[in-house]
Amino acid sequence: MATVLFHPFEKTIETEGAQTILQLAQRLGLPLESACGGRKVCGKCKVIVEQTAEPLPLPSERESKSLGRLLDRGYRLACETTLTADAVVRIPEESLSRRQVILTSGAGYRVPVRLRPGVHPHPVRVAEPVLHSIQGDRERLLLALRETYGLGELVFDPFVLRKIPDLLRSGGEVVTAFVRDGREVIDLRRDSDGGAFGIAFDIGTTTVVGYLMDLSTGRESSVRAALNPQTAFGADVVSRITICQEEPDGLERLRSGIVGCLNSLVAEACAEAGMEADRVLEATAVGNTVMNHLLMGLDPRYLAMAPYPPVLQAAQDVKARDLGLRIAPSGYLHLLPLKAGFVGSDTVACVLATGLRRSEIPTLLLDLGTNGEIVMGDRARLLCCSTAAGPAFEGGHLRFGMRAAPGAIERVKIDPATLEVSAQTIDHLPPVGICGSGIISAVAEMVRSGIVLKRGNFNEELRSPRLRRGDEGWEFVLAWASGTALRQDIVVTRKDVSELQLAKSAVHAGASLLQEMFGAPFRRVLLAGACGNYMDPRDALAIGLIPENPGARIIGVGNAAGHGSCLALLDTKKRKEAERIARSMEYQELAGLSRFSELFLSGMYFRSARDGRGDGDAFK
Amino acid sequence: MATVLFHPFEKTIETEGAQTILQLAQRLGLPLESACGGRKVCGKCKVIVEQTAEPLPLPSERESKSLGRLLDRGYRLACETTLTADAVVRIPEESLSRRQVILTSGAGYRVPVRLRPGVHPHPVRVAEPVLHSIQGDRERLLLALRETYGLGELVFDPFVLRKIPDLLRSGGEVVTAFVRDGREVIDLRRDSDGGAFGIAFDIGTTTVVGYLMDLSTGRESSVRAALNPQTAFGADVVSRITICQEEPDGLERLRSGIVGCLNSLVAEACAEAGMEADRVLEATAVGNTVMNHLLMGLDPRYLAMAPYPPVLQAAQDVKARDLGLRIAPSGYLHLLPLKAGFVGSDTVACVLATGLRRSEIPTLLLDLGTNGEIVMGDRARLLCCSTAAGPAFEGGHLRFGMRAAPGAIERVKIDPATLEVSAQTIDHLPPVGICGSGIISAVAEMVRSGIVLKRGNFNEELRSPRLRRGDEGWEFVLAWASGTALRQDIVVTRKDVSELQLAKSAVHAGASLLQEMFGAPFRRVLLAGACGNYMDPRDALAIGLIPENPGARIIGVGNAAGHGSCLALLDTKKRKEAERIARSMEYQELAGLSRFSELFLSGMYFRSARDGRGDGDAFK
Repeated sequence: MATVLFHPFEKTIETEGAQTILQLAQRLGLPLESACGGRKVCGKCKVIVEQTAEPLPLPSERESKSLGRLLDRGYRLACETTLTADAVVRIPEESLSRRQVILTSGAGYRVPVRLRPGVHPHPVRVAEPVLHSIQGDRERLLLALRETYGLGELVFDPFVLRKIPDLLRSGGEVVTAFVRDGREVIDLRRDSDGGAFGIAFDIGTTTVVGYLMDLSTGRESSVRAALNPQTAFGADVVSRITICQEEPDGLERLRSGIVGCLNSLVAEACAEAGMEADRVLEATAVGNTVMNHLLMGLDPRYLAMAPYPPVLQAAQDVKARDLGLRIAPSGYLHLLPLKAGFVGSDTVACVLATGLRRSEIPTLLLDLGTNGEIVMGDRARLLCCSTAAGPAFEGGHLRFGMRAAPGAIERVKIDPATLEVSAQTIDHLPPVGICGSGIISAVAEMVRSGIVLKRGNFNEELRSPRLRRGDEGWEFVLAWASGTALRQDIVVTRKDVSELQLAKSAVHAGASLLQEMFGAPFRRVLLAGACGNYMDPRDALAIGLIPENPGARIIGVGNAAGHGSCLALLDTKKRKEAERIARSMEYQELAGLSRFSELFLSGMYFRSARDGRGDGDAFK
Repeated sequence: MATVLFHPFEKTIETEGAQTILQLAQRLGLPLESACGGRKVCGKCKVIVEQTAEPLPLPSERESKSLGRLLDRGYRLACETTLTADAVVRIPEESLSRRQVILTSGAGYRVPVRLRPGVHPHPVRVAEPVLHSIQGDRERLLLALRETYGLGELVFDPFVLRKIPDLLRSGGEVVTAFVRDGREVIDLRRDSDGGAFGIAFDIGTTTVVGYLMDLSTGRESSVRAALNPQTAFGADVVSRITICQEEPDGLERLRSGIVGCLNSLVAEACAEAGMEADRVLEATAVGNTVMNHLLMGLDPRYLAMAPYPPVLQAAQDVKARDLGLRIAPSGYLHLLPLKAGFVGSDTVACVLATGLRRSEIPTLLLDLGTNGEIVMGDRARLLCCSTAAGPAFEGGHLRFGMRAAPGAIERVKIDPATLEVSAQTIDHLPPVGICGSGIISAVAEMVRSGIVLKRGNFNEELRSPRLRRGDEGWEFVLAWASGTALRQDIVVTRKDVSELQLAKSAVHAGASLLQEMFGAPFRRVLLAGACGNYMDPRDALAIGLIPENPGARIIGVGNAAGHGSCLALLDTKKRKEAERIARSMEYQELAGLSRFSELFLSGMYFRSARDGRGDGDAFK
């Protein structure tokens, strides 16, 4: 029996009989790379034997070939080298397995990633063909995969078959088969060509993001975002559905638009990472139900007609080429499951990314965009609904509304004594307009300073040059023309306030309803999406966007949908969890629900600092 | 207990409790149509109740709807109607199930077909969507398929998903899902749109045939043949391989050529049958290994280099669209397995079609084309080899050689006394050239009449205007210029005889070798392929194409490969059998085998009627 010390972990282990260094490292649970799992194929498990009580056995032929001059520096292959006497072994940086790396994004509210991708590299040595017992190239490769990894019934994608003959004869000893779900060979490469990549898409009505990830390390290689080209056909999902109803080729135009956009993101992300797109072997996508349908080429028209059924709810695994997506020719796109016509896979992905289904704290999750998707619950029960919030949270339908782009007013302060305004813009540029978090901030301050009254009307008794009658009635000047990029005054109008009232009241009512159904107050609020992330929680409370529960924390969680897409890309178990989320979440249809109408109407008011005369009906 | 008599089968059965007419018919094993298997969906099980001892229960709502005025004529649905008293029931012609139909082709040497196709129609009623328990269209369809047929884990092809929303709302109560292997939905149609079709391809180096079959009846709807457009790149497989080696886009040109040809055959066969190509839900293909590889886009170059390994041997199921084959968008192409570089799936299909693997009689199977594939064996053991016979059997490399087309000399008689010739042509047109069976017949007669001597040289002592010296040495005139379409004499040259000698000797040697390995004489010879089918067995023996075993029958079996392709299309169990054939057949490589060389050289001679002077080496 001998004792082996491993640097840099400073762990020791007693040997039991003749064991290889790899076996010892595995017994200790050390992250020593071994792509082939100790089958003496990959040559990745390089270690340095720093000290030994007895001389080591001579290097094997494979070690000599694989390590070359590294042998002089004490390098050995851990799978080939047996230790029988005390020794000190170092696992060098390049041999540290990335499998254990935990992807934790900035904040603690997101669940960490375990790396369990669907596609795994399997390096193998394939026998040469012989004359008198003829076996096809595919059959010899299959035999090697069976003998080396015990992979039984493997299917080869037809495009992979085409790569076999040249690759087996390209001079390398080892070829690497990329096997999906232990079932299908979807790529074949020379060993030296490196690992597999994947791309996770988050397809928003407005913005599309692609996260290129290294499937062997879990690391993000690059991230690219683009405007959804479908915005040319209308800003919201309803206008996209209308195109499909009214134009014979409407669906096809929207479909090819989004596919082209995803292909650009793939190309750009790969260019940034300095690699070819055909190394991207897997993709995932989340989006609202209409985005999901358009990508799949499914007619979304019935989503606009009661009872608003989607064409499908379940997750789909589709050959990327069947949708026109240009990643590796045999790669798959996994579309996460969705719940209902207006609760899409983006919402499911938010729940996945925030760990709501495992939470012990009753939590309210808001994903605010054109529609406000709301989830409430904990590990025992999840409820969800969708409110037609309108586009105010994305700056839509406002006099000076804009997307959250440079120059957008995103935060406002109003001095209650002087009604003077200080407006903060994105990238500190001269203001161009007002984005979602900006209008929330502005109206919250206008309520606090008494400019906006309970019903949303303006306090006409206040005296300030900023408060005035404009073409469309009363308005309040956030920025004077001289300081703006537009060279005109940027104002918040009475109509803008009404838009926000409709939106916030819908969200407030939906959240209140789910809380009533759940039967207990939420103790945490997660705000997903760009608007939610940049919004000041106090503003959200000030305008009455969220029901007020004493002690409830409000946390911005950023692009949780995109993070959920990444999770599903890197960890196939998360795909199963997404399906469980989609199935178990209880969907509440709000259409025609009288309790929702009550809550909606009562939620329209502001808790104004002071009320004045002229406070009529908010919607006359 | 009551007694029920069924016309027109004149079978009676005692009822056991309350049983439906369908249950009674099924107990008797009567071929009563019931597409939905008694699940009260399809409305196919119409019967006429001709007499009853007691009045029948009133027709159900579904019967009234489904049968309409037929009710007045005694029609009922067998699945809906329970008999409790004596009755006489007639199964009308239109309700006779076609499932039992046995496809027997002309001769008894081919195995009959049992109809067990891979694709089955499943008519179902799908529930309407409801507001407060939202289910996607796909999910409701899936539920209907599970509840009606017990189909559990079904996958939907993405192109089928696109058909769902409109089809569920097209007004029909019933939709029919076409399910492949009980696993994947590959088409969806209105019930009234009828059944599924399939097409079986036989891809020859020269000729390609497509058999369009009705998968619900097993009937042939139409057959179309075309010239393989790859012939423009060379007549034989070796020239096709050369193109792939020498031209950068050679493989792609050959691949798209054959795919285009198959698409034309689909289009023509469907036009002839008066139907759309998208109703063809399944295809099968057989061909030699090079044809198989070219269709799949697999580089065949290594087939020309020892040890001649194919890229693959196993059967493949490929989405037809992935190869560019234009049948139904979600249909599959099944490519039968192959054995070796020069024993393709066409040979496997011949073995399948002739039932060789189940035969108790040791049998020799010859498939003569550019290569002569030879199989010898019985149920206990099958041996195979391939001989590079050269193109003589297809009329290639002969001075006046041609394919078996109208005007080709296919049969020759020579009067041994006068050496006068009577030549029979295809379609009795003026002769244009000589096809494979024609050259065999001509040389056999020339041997019989002493014109050709043992070593293949011409008997220069004979005096006849037909026997003369031409530009290329001695030649024999089969047809005088005045009677031909060419307006020139059609002759058989010494060189033509040499070509035939090489070909027949290769086949003879291969067959002899397999017989030696098998250890017992064959007692039956099956000649597959056009040439084999039209050849006179006595001619085959006369030229020494086949080793002579006393009492062995020689039978032409026509396009056995094509029949094998049809078998695999109509009966998925035959696909399994084809895989067993391909695996269990023992392949004998002839290259470098000294015993083969011996047999080859000794088989070169003719058993000439009389020998004369000048009989030198056959190949000087």
